[in-house]
Amino acid sequence: LDYPTILASIQEELRPFWGQGKVADYIPELARVSPDQFGLSLECSDGRIFELGASTTPFSIQSISKVFTLVMAIQCLSEKVWTRVGVEPSGNPFNSLVQLEYEEGVPRNPFINAGAIVIADMLVSELGAPKEAFLQFMRSITGEVGFSSNEKVAQSEKEHGFRNSAMAYFLKSYGNLKNEVEVVLDFYYFHCALEMNCRQLAKAFMVFANHGCVLQTGEKVLSLSQTKRVNALMQTCGFYDESGEFTFSVGLPGKSGVGGGIAALHPQEFSVSVWSPRLNKKGNSVLGMKALELLTTKTGFSIF
Amino acid sequence: LDYPTILASIQEELRPFWGQGKVADYIPELARVSPDQFGLSLECSDGRIFELGASTTPFSIQSISKVFTLVMAIQCLSEKVWTRVGVEPSGNPFNSLVQLEYEEGVPRNPFINAGAIVIADMLVSELGAPKEAFLQFMRSITGEVGFSSNEKVAQSEKEHGFRNSAMAYFLKSYGNLKNEVEVVLDFYYFHCALEMNCRQLAKAFMVFANHGCVLQTGEKVLSLSQTKRVNALMQTCGFYDESGEFTFSVGLPGKSGVGGGIAALHPQEFSVSVWSPRLNKKGNSVLGMKALELLTTKTGFSIF
Amino acid sequence: LDYPTILASIQEELRPFWGQGKVADYIPELARVSPDQFGLSLECSDGRIFELGASTTPFSIQSISKVFTLVMAIQCLSEKVWTRVGVEPSGNPFNSLVQLEYEEGVPRNPFINAGAIVIADMLVSELGAPKEAFLQFMRSITGEVGFSSNEKVAQSEKEHGFRNSAMAYFLKSYGNLKNEVEVVLDFYYFHCALEMNCRQLAKAFMVFANHGCVLQTGEKVLSLSQTKRVNALMQTCGFYDESGEFTFSVGLPGKSGVGGGIAALHPQEFSVSVWSPRLNKKGNSVLGMKALELLTTKTGFSIF
Amino acid sequence: LDYPTILASIQEELRPFWGQGKVADYIPELARVSPDQFGLSLECSDGRIFELGASTTPFSIQSISKVFTLVMAIQCLSEKVWTRVGVEPSGNPFNSLVQLEYEEGVPRNPFINAGAIVIADMLVSELGAPKEAFLQFMRSITGEVGFSSNEKVAQSEKEHGFRNSAMAYFLKSYGNLKNEVEVVLDFYYFHCALEMNCRQLAKAFMVFANHGCVLQTGEKVLSLSQTKRVNALMQTCGFYDESGEFTFSVGLPGKSGVGGGIAALHPQEFSVSVWSPRLNKKGNSVLGMKALELLTTKTGFSIF
Repeated sequence: LDYPTILASIQEELRPFWGQGKVADYIPELARVSPDQFGLSLECSDGRIFELGASTTPFSIQSISKVFTLVMAIQCLSEKVWTRVGVEPSGNPFNSLVQLEYEEGVPRNPFINAGAIVIADMLVSELGAPKEAFLQFMRSITGEVGFSSNEKVAQSEKEHGFRNSAMAYFLKSYGNLKNEVEVVLDFYYFHCALEMNCRQLAKAFMVFANHGCVLQTGEKVLSLSQTKRVNALMQTCGFYDESGEFTFSVGLPGKSGVGGGIAALHPQEFSVSVWSPRLNKKGNSVLGMKALELLTTKTGFSIF
Repeated sequence: LDYPTILASIQEELRPFWGQGKVADYIPELARVSPDQFGLSLECSDGRIFELGASTTPFSIQSISKVFTLVMAIQCLSEKVWTRVGVEPSGNPFNSLVQLEYEEGVPRNPFINAGAIVIADMLVSELGAPKEAFLQFMRSITGEVGFSSNEKVAQSEKEHGFRNSAMAYFLKSYGNLKNEVEVVLDFYYFHCALEMNCRQLAKAFMVFANHGCVLQTGEKVLSLSQTKRVNALMQTCGFYDESGEFTFSVGLPGKSGVGGGIAALHPQEFSVSVWSPRLNKKGNSVLGMKALELLTTKTGFSIF
Repeated sequence: LDYPTILASIQEELRPFWGQGKVADYIPELARVSPDQFGLSLECSDGRIFELGASTTPFSIQSISKVFTLVMAIQCLSEKVWTRVGVEPSGNPFNSLVQLEYEEGVPRNPFINAGAIVIADMLVSELGAPKEAFLQFMRSITGEVGFSSNEKVAQSEKEHGFRNSAMAYFLKSYGNLKNEVEVVLDFYYFHCALEMNCRQLAKAFMVFANHGCVLQTGEKVLSLSQTKRVNALMQTCGFYDESGEFTFSVGLPGKSGVGGGIAALHPQEFSVSVWSPRLNKKGNSVLGMKALELLTTKTGFSIF
Repeated sequence: LDYPTILASIQEELRPFWGQGKVADYIPELARVSPDQFGLSLECSDGRIFELGASTTPFSIQSISKVFTLVMAIQCLSEKVWTRVGVEPSGNPFNSLVQLEYEEGVPRNPFINAGAIVIADMLVSELGAPKEAFLQFMRSITGEVGFSSNEKVAQSEKEHGFRNSAMAYFLKSYGNLKNEVEVVLDFYYFHCALEMNCRQLAKAFMVFANHGCVLQTGEKVLSLSQTKRVNALMQTCGFYDESGEFTFSVGLPGKSGVGGGIAALHPQEFSVSVWSPRLNKKGNSVLGMKALELLTTKTGFSIF
């Protein structure tokens, strides 16, 4: 496959979609980003890297971080993770409390906010210093050290995150949160506020395309079976209530964040990360979604 | 009407129901009450008082206090109260977050927990010292001074009230809570933990049977129209999701609490308070509900 | 009380509200009514009648008929009625299937569509010829013979009543409908399409203000206790999801219909019927609601 | 891959699970099947076939038929299909009306009952004789002629399918059903009552593993892109509210039916069909789910 040509044609076909959608504005710090940016980084399983645009500009990875905390929780607790959080798509907006009430405090999956808060709670219980452990983990799977969590963003989310507080207390009322709400949310906002660029994110997602191993070092992060399961979860639950649409039109396991980032992968073939801050109504990057749809169309590499 | 004879026969007919139901145990302090107690106090609009059993034993009035904070909010804000809380029965358990989500943060009525928390928020905003003002208000409408809020109960509720915290943060996420969650809940638990006996509670409810005026002093607490509206609200929303059943079988405006107390009234005729800690599945006192049903049957005094 | 003066001032104060709201248009036949009409008939418990406007113009009573079929079902089955339908307000629009699913096929009360369909099913089972029995019943409580069900309206509702068919089949799936869906709905549409005028309707509702007896003949229709219960139900459930508002602002037991009619009563004092086709967003007559609110304000006769 | 050895070991490892679960009993005709049967047929993309047990015993394919009617609808209407039915997983039981109400009559996906009824409605509109066309289609993609729809099962479902009738009328009330309810459901029950055996079903599903073409004839049934989309839909929505679990533990696109059948596929590799009548609580075959989980574990062929 001639990736340079494919990426060039994607860039060309994205033109009409520039300027569509709007930047997440629910917290002031996120709203400050310059909206008309786009970057893409694609890493092949043979180590080659192909990129477009602002592929080395850091952005807030937000919910994409939930995949990494899930991996850490699986490393700590293995199958026990699934006693406190489910594996089914939610069919509801990511921050709905309704479903949580009907299902009595067990979040449907680890990628809706309630589920990710439960995962954060597990890590607070299991790890002495979860923030440091999280950064260390990210460094180990990317081989890079140059990123950190943006304190202003984390603080801004904390100050406007009343619904997450509601969700955390609700989980606690069902006995599915073991630590103090403030402590758990402090870690939750920390990992959501991590800033990475497309290149780093593509490297991190290569683990999921490479049988659970870091490509450069061969370090085993997850077993093959665990890797497949995380990929399966991304496929069915990675895009909020647009997960079906993404599976349908892109056909790759992936995860999006309200910072405008999306990371995805094709097992054994490649990992890819795109970023553009303008979001569609479901909270997913307009250019990012379109770019990935074009990528699978042009490469023929959907998993289906 | 020969009230002494009527009350005696009610006492007799209640016998088979003693021991049914169970004491609220969701907070340890409430669970400590001796379960097999019963008291009743009926005050006529001519000032005569008739009583049964433990009518002067103090108990935790819990949700009955929501009627009094609503009255205080109406005194402060008049019709503006209804811009932030509705007047419709909820059709759901008292602590459901589901309905709140569908109705975007405006609680259905001031007697479900979410609604009472909004009312508490109003009082925190309007009054310098809401706790003192609340106690002062209770003293003024009863002419009594010998009661206070039980700090242990308030503290116990606070420590186990994760769902109320969830609800308060959820309200805040919709912009319908102006003060800090902790401050509002501190006042909320304070007024719920007020301890009164049946005699005092019947006196307090006489205001609603007496055109909004204190019987002994003639002091005007609410206008006639406001009084009717509070009574109407108690009729449709006073007993959680058993409000229809209470209206159906008792036919008086009233309000219950999980401490086992119920207060009710017949306009221009009487106010009445009963207390017995064992609750039915809907959270209402078993003996209390039965006693009031017998009272309206024997006196013929339902409002319908 | 000087009723003629009171009614005259009500008529005066209604002026600004003429033309507000819109006629029910979900079925073509109902949409044909001339919108700017208003009638009122008030019958006192001493037999005097006071009226305004088009008090003898027949209109489609629609959901008001549900009160009468409920009375007939109570006559047939007494307390057994309540094994198949509840007595709680619904908190949802009148034709919602959501609640029915959560409550597994037992409608919340007999005045939402699902509940009235179950009542119709009971009457189909109990009575040889339910339509004739219904007309006969209406004649006996009003002392009048000059009304009938409008076949065109019934037919039009049948042809557009897909949601009622859905509800009936849903009830049947829960085992709470014994007869064929078509047979039950045929009777349901028949009784909803009954046409009466305000004077007749006020006479019919006098039964509920007069201890369950027909005023002119003394015939006992319901026991005192049953009458109180039907009144209580109208109070909490008579106005769809505006029942709390009606109780709050009018304070009388009553029932509305999408034909623009409302009937209400004050026990021992009067029954009253108003009619005006323009509806508010909740499906209740704009002028009708306002007229009754003024009536209780001016007479001081709310039940609270 | 040594399929004979793999299948033999699957058969061995299934032993402890025999007798678990129970046969669908919601309609009498389905409940009659002898419960302890098991068959499997696996067809490789090179045409080899490997089988276990009762692979040529016909069974009621039930909801698996919904994949085929969807394909027919796509053939007729192409992208227009998605204006009347969504592509998102439902997060609710397959026959819930709740979600349909919140989403105003557009079913979440074509595999929940409501969605399949809409698809049936499309085919009734598009095809002169939908039953014959359906059988003809099944013959063309399998190259077999020896199967038909079981009239007794269809009739039995019709007589007990009140909830489907409810759903169909509900769809009609939202304008999302163009034909008569009876006509649509008659076709719906017809295609659900189709009887096939594992071998035939595996052949039919080979289309989805073979770029949308019939393996033996090369006939194009769907475009490559359409094929991927149908596969994606099976992945996210094929197993009712156990779709996430199936994706998670099996990792193949597939579809189950309450007759105990499951069909699945790995693109470019194989199609597979299993059948065993005992179902788990979610309505999926116990032995079938387990067999497929073992198959992907032993072959390493999950798509993730």
